[in-house]
Amino acid sequence: MKDISLSDVFLYAPAWNRIGGQIRDMLSSGSPLLLETDGRLIRNGVPVAARPGVGRVAWASPDAYVDGAINAFLDHCRAMQLDWVQAGSAGVDNPRFAALNAAGIQLTTSDAMVPSIGELVMAGVLDHFQRGPERRAVQASRQWTLLPFREIAGSRWVVFGFGAIGREVGHRARAFGAHVTGIRRSGGEDPAADCIVLPDGALPALAQADVVVLCAPLSPATRHMANAAFFAALKSGAVIVNVGRGDLLDEAALIAALDSGQMGHAILDVVSTEPLPPDSPIWAHPKIALTCHVAGLGNGLIARSDALFLENLGRYLSGAQLRLAVDQRLFGSG
Amino acid sequence: MKDISLSDVFLYAPAWNRIGGQIRDMLSSGSPLLLETDGRLIRNGVPVAARPGVGRVAWASPDAYVDGAINAFLDHCRAMQLDWVQAGSAGVDNPRFAALNAAGIQLTTSDAMVPSIGELVMAGVLDHFQRGPERRAVQASRQWTLLPFREIAGSRWVVFGFGAIGREVGHRARAFGAHVTGIRRSGGEDPAADCIVLPDGALPALAQADVVVLCAPLSPATRHMANAAFFAALKSGAVIVNVGRGDLLDEAALIAALDSGQMGHAILDVVSTEPLPPDSPIWAHPKIALTCHVAGLGNGLIARSDALFLENLGRYLSGAQLRLAVDQRLFGSG
Repeated sequence: MKDISLSDVFLYAPAWNRIGGQIRDMLSSGSPLLLETDGRLIRNGVPVAARPGVGRVAWASPDAYVDGAINAFLDHCRAMQLDWVQAGSAGVDNPRFAALNAAGIQLTTSDAMVPSIGELVMAGVLDHFQRGPERRAVQASRQWTLLPFREIAGSRWVVFGFGAIGREVGHRARAFGAHVTGIRRSGGEDPAADCIVLPDGALPALAQADVVVLCAPLSPATRHMANAAFFAALKSGAVIVNVGRGDLLDEAALIAALDSGQMGHAILDVVSTEPLPPDSPIWAHPKIALTCHVAGLGNGLIARSDALFLENLGRYLSGAQLRLAVDQRLFGSG
Repeated sequence: MKDISLSDVFLYAPAWNRIGGQIRDMLSSGSPLLLETDGRLIRNGVPVAARPGVGRVAWASPDAYVDGAINAFLDHCRAMQLDWVQAGSAGVDNPRFAALNAAGIQLTTSDAMVPSIGELVMAGVLDHFQRGPERRAVQASRQWTLLPFREIAGSRWVVFGFGAIGREVGHRARAFGAHVTGIRRSGGEDPAADCIVLPDGALPALAQADVVVLCAPLSPATRHMANAAFFAALKSGAVIVNVGRGDLLDEAALIAALDSGQMGHAILDVVSTEPLPPDSPIWAHPKIALTCHVAGLGNGLIARSDALFLENLGRYLSGAQLRLAVDQRLFGSG
């Protein structure tokens, strides 16, 4: 049992507006610390200085990320030397999370975005397989034209990083009759995959893959894992989908592989430099479908995220293990 | 046991080229009747007249439909007064099938197109929910722009006609976390639906539906089932998908409901008049995504179709019940 009051809780103000009542039901009286959308840190409407002892736990809700308030929020968390921060993201590669971890603050990540990521992956592959651009051109032409298309049924998928996101992708692809190979370091079996393979053993699966999905965490070991050698190992004409982090993939090598015909198509929701600079060749490449890091932004995100924070707050209060706790070793030693 | 020889089998020539070897293994010697792609009816390269007693069974493979040879093929079937015709389509509303039925010829339909129909439905709904046109405009604009989107997870679907096609739709939508209500006359339960409702009880489900899918057979009872009253009963902004037959839906009423805002979007793979005339308002309607009756034309269609014919041919030879036999009463009395 941890004994904290409402005054120990730090939230982005819109999150307090949504779930303040539920938090109030869980905690003794007090007033939360809020980061307002105008950037002020307040309690009871009065500005507060972020310093040690001012708060204990924080909810870095996804709207803070979308609104561009996340860096200020995390800087406050560090200055207050909190006990626990619930991230609103799946990845904690923003360097501020490493700083929180180095300061001994417990981090938990979120899986609230994974269903919509699975939906975006399926939408992208279906539009490509079903010749979306040609199909729309046929409608615009007013000429009745039969366009046969490729099915996901019977296609072979390789999903790198078979955690929460990978499972959402695998589950949907298998419902369409695809064969799914999940790649992960922990091996084992998984009901959302036909087979699980260790990273070292991925090569034979790649040579048969129709679709490759990247959803591994970014680390020194995975940075540019999709490079020229990787593309050369793939079945010719394969489709690659990146919903992990932009730096999982070497963009120059991808463009060369698309231009040579070795790769058939790329679906990118993340890129190495975000926002993508206007002069990047990715924008207008005919074989790339780009979205602007929106895969997590489904309309169910906020409700699932708030529910996760409330669940973990309950666990925190009772002293139970938090869901999706970050292994401190993830950040390495340097 | 039916005793027929290879000479009793009538096929579209491309089908013979694909599976002639397998048919030859099942039957005693002889030469099949073939409809060539140039329209000639031949045996052993020699023209033949279609008359009673010339053949016994036929495989109206889907490529005959796509190539526009199906009417000639079915006319030959009728002239030959065959015993059994395996259709390559799910629907037998082409009037020639009624004529075959009236002549006492056993008909079987096909379910080989159902997986790709399920894929087309999901592609259409995902593209609409994920704001496909805006997403593509963002990429073309070179401006990094966050476009949140709607999820299938948590949406409510009503599928009219919960047979082979409806099940493929329901199975995939449920894998995305949708709630699926199947509507069918036979009632019962189905693992691909959260609940099954009789047609008379559809109204409450319609009032909550985010997505309505039409895949019922066309009959006097279902003609224009989606009419002005139907659209008015739907939840405002609902999406309708027609992968059944064009005449299930009153097109003028649909356009009025889209224009009034009552309906949010329509995905039409079938229309009342096919090919759709160039001056139809459907082509350029901003809330309609049109495909040209291609939902069955996935790349797995031919292999699944040929496999169905071979399976039913085996059943025919052994005297077993044929799969997907058409209930003669389907055609009614007039």
